[in-house]
Amino acid sequence: MQKPSIRESEVTGIKFGTLAEFAAAANPERSILVADEKVFHLYGEAFAGTGMPVLLLPSGETAKSLDSLRLLYRGFADRHVDRSWKAIALGGGALLDAAGFGAATWMRGIPVVYAPTTLLSMVDASLGGKTGIDFEGKKNLVGLFSVPELVLCDLGTLSSLSDREFSSGMAEVIKHAILVGGEIFSFLEQAAGRFIRREKLPERTLRRLVSDSQKVKSDIVARDPFERGERRLLNLGHTFGHALESSTGLPHGHAVSLGISLACDFACGAGELDSGDASRIRFLLESWGLPTETGTACTREELRGAVRFLDSDKKRAGVSVHFVLPLGIGRVETRSIPLETLRDFYIRRIG
Amino acid sequence: MQKPSIRESEVTGIKFGTLAEFAAAANPERSILVADEKVFHLYGEAFAGTGMPVLLLPSGETAKSLDSLRLLYRGFADRHVDRSWKAIALGGGALLDAAGFGAATWMRGIPVVYAPTTLLSMVDASLGGKTGIDFEGKKNLVGLFSVPELVLCDLGTLSSLSDREFSSGMAEVIKHAILVGGEIFSFLEQAAGRFIRREKLPERTLRRLVSDSQKVKSDIVARDPFERGERRLLNLGHTFGHALESSTGLPHGHAVSLGISLACDFACGAGELDSGDASRIRFLLESWGLPTETGTACTREELRGAVRFLDSDKKRAGVSVHFVLPLGIGRVETRSIPLETLRDFYIRRIG
Repeated sequence: MQKPSIRESEVTGIKFGTLAEFAAAANPERSILVADEKVFHLYGEAFAGTGMPVLLLPSGETAKSLDSLRLLYRGFADRHVDRSWKAIALGGGALLDAAGFGAATWMRGIPVVYAPTTLLSMVDASLGGKTGIDFEGKKNLVGLFSVPELVLCDLGTLSSLSDREFSSGMAEVIKHAILVGGEIFSFLEQAAGRFIRREKLPERTLRRLVSDSQKVKSDIVARDPFERGERRLLNLGHTFGHALESSTGLPHGHAVSLGISLACDFACGAGELDSGDASRIRFLLESWGLPTETGTACTREELRGAVRFLDSDKKRAGVSVHFVLPLGIGRVETRSIPLETLRDFYIRRIG
Repeated sequence: MQKPSIRESEVTGIKFGTLAEFAAAANPERSILVADEKVFHLYGEAFAGTGMPVLLLPSGETAKSLDSLRLLYRGFADRHVDRSWKAIALGGGALLDAAGFGAATWMRGIPVVYAPTTLLSMVDASLGGKTGIDFEGKKNLVGLFSVPELVLCDLGTLSSLSDREFSSGMAEVIKHAILVGGEIFSFLEQAAGRFIRREKLPERTLRRLVSDSQKVKSDIVARDPFERGERRLLNLGHTFGHALESSTGLPHGHAVSLGISLACDFACGAGELDSGDASRIRFLLESWGLPTETGTACTREELRGAVRFLDSDKKRAGVSVHFVLPLGIGRVETRSIPLETLRDFYIRRIG
C-alpha cells in the first residue's frame, strides 16, 4: 500500500494529494459528496467506494441555477445533513461555486471541502471565498462570501483536461504572474519552452506553477477579502474579457487572455505601458496556447456583440468602471475610467 | 411640519421613529421596499409616496419559501438593484427573515434595513442576524448569519396587532427578562398590572419594554454571535415550544410560553428551580395574556402530536439536546440532557 502523501501547501487551507487518499481519510458517515456528474464518472469512484452519499449536479454552468440549488437542498434534506456533516465538492469552478453556496446556506452553513478538478478552479474559483449561482442568465447574481475548510488539489485530475481547458486555466495563472512579476513571471516564461505537449510538463513544474498562482491570489484576498480595493486587481483582463466571454463561446480563460491583451493595448495607447512589457505578456499568453488577437479568435459579429455586454458590466460605479491597468510586469493599478472611453477604445480597436 | 424625531436606541443599530420619517429620509433612487403584502396595505403608503420601487411578498410563513425568494431575486433583477442599493424590509419576522436572506445573497450582499411591524420581530427576529427560509416544510433549513444596517422600530405599528399577536411577542420579552432577572423582570411585573387593555399602555412603557428586551438579546448575541455557547440560552422554552408550535396552530410566542412553563416544571421536578420563582414566571406569562397550561391551550391530539417533533429538534447533538434550564429568575443554564429524558417527562406531563 502506498503511504498517504497528503501535503500541506505553502498557503493555509490548501493541500496537495490524491482524491483517493483524501476519500479514505474522510468520515463517510458524516460526509456528502456533491459532484459534477461528468467529473464523477471520471473521479468519483474513490469516494463512492467509501459508501458516503453522493449528490450529482448537472455539469458546467447549469450547476449554478436556482433549480440545481433546490436539488442540492433536497439531497441535504433527504440525507438529514446537519451541521455535524461536511460537504465535499468535486468538480470545476461552476460546481464549486454552487456547492459552496449551497453548503454556506444550509442551516446557516455547514463545512465544505473543495476538490477542484480543473486548473482554472485550482488557481481561481476555489480561492477567495466567492460562492454563488446565476440568475436568469446573469452570472453570479446570487451568492455570498464563504471560505471552504480546505482546498484539496489532486494534480492528477488535470491530465483529463483538454488542451483548451488547460490553457483556459493558464490565463488566470499568467494574470496572477503579471500582478506580481519577478520570478513568478519568469518561471512561466521558462516553463513555457517545455510546453510542446502538456504531458511533458513534470509534476514538479506543474505543482510550482499552481502553488505560485494560488499564493498570489491568496495573499491579495487575505489583504482585501471583500473586494474593497486591492482585490480588484484580480479583475485584470476581465472588463473586456467578460464582455467577450458573453458574446462568444470562448472558454473563460481564452476570453480573459484577449481581455489582458486589450488592456495592454489600452495602457500602451495611454502611454502607461512600455511596448516591450506588452510584448512579453502577449508572447507568454501565446506560448501557453492562448489567443491574443481578437480578430483571429472571434468573428466580427461576436466582436460587435461584446459592446452591449461592456455596458452592463456589474462592476460599474455610475458611468465609470474600476478598470485594471497594466503599467508593467509586476506593476498594475485600478483606475476609475469612464465606460465611454473604454467602449470607444474597443470599437476603434475592433475596427 | 413635525420635526423629524428618529432617535438612537441604547442598542447600536436600532432606532426608534416613525415609518413616515424614515421613508422621507431614504434615497428613493437607490432603495427598494420589500414588504409583506398585508403590512404594505396598512403601512406601505409612506414608502410608496416616495416613488421607490416596491416588492410584495406573500404574508406570513409563505414568504419564507424558495419560490418567494425567486420572486424577490426577480424583483431585484428587474429593477437592476446592485450593491449601491439598499433593501428596506417591512413586516414581521417571516418577512424580515426572507428579505434579509435575499438581500444578504444578492450580489454577495446588499445593505438591508429592517422595519419590524410586530412586537415579536422587534425584540427577536430583527436582532441577532439569523436570516433564512424554510425548505419543504422544515423551518429555517436554508439561511445564514447576516446583520442589517439598521433596525427601525415604529412603535405605532404595534397598535394594529391583535391581542394574540401582541402577547405572542410578549413571550419573547418575558423570556429575555427571565434570562437577566432584576429590574427588567420586575418592570414587566409592574407594567402587567396596567395591561387591562393594551391601548392603556403608555408609549413610554412600551418603549422601555421593547428597549430592555432588545438590549438583553443584543448583549447575548454580541458575546456569542454564532450560537456556540451563551446564545443558546435564548432557546429557553423553545425545545418544547417548537414541538408544540409544530403540532398545534398556536402562535410562536404562545407555544414558547407553554415551553417556558414546561421547562420550569422540568426544573422544579429536578430540584433545580424553586417553586416560588416558577410561580412568578408563570404568573407573569399569564398576566400578559399568555397560556401556561398545555391541557387548556391544546387538544390531546395536539399534545400527543408534539412528541414526534421533539424527536426531530434540529438542535440535538447525538441523542442529547442542549436544553435551557431555568434555575431561578435571572439564572438560566444550558445542559446537555438526553432526548429520552425530556420525552419521558413530557409524556408523563401530558398524562
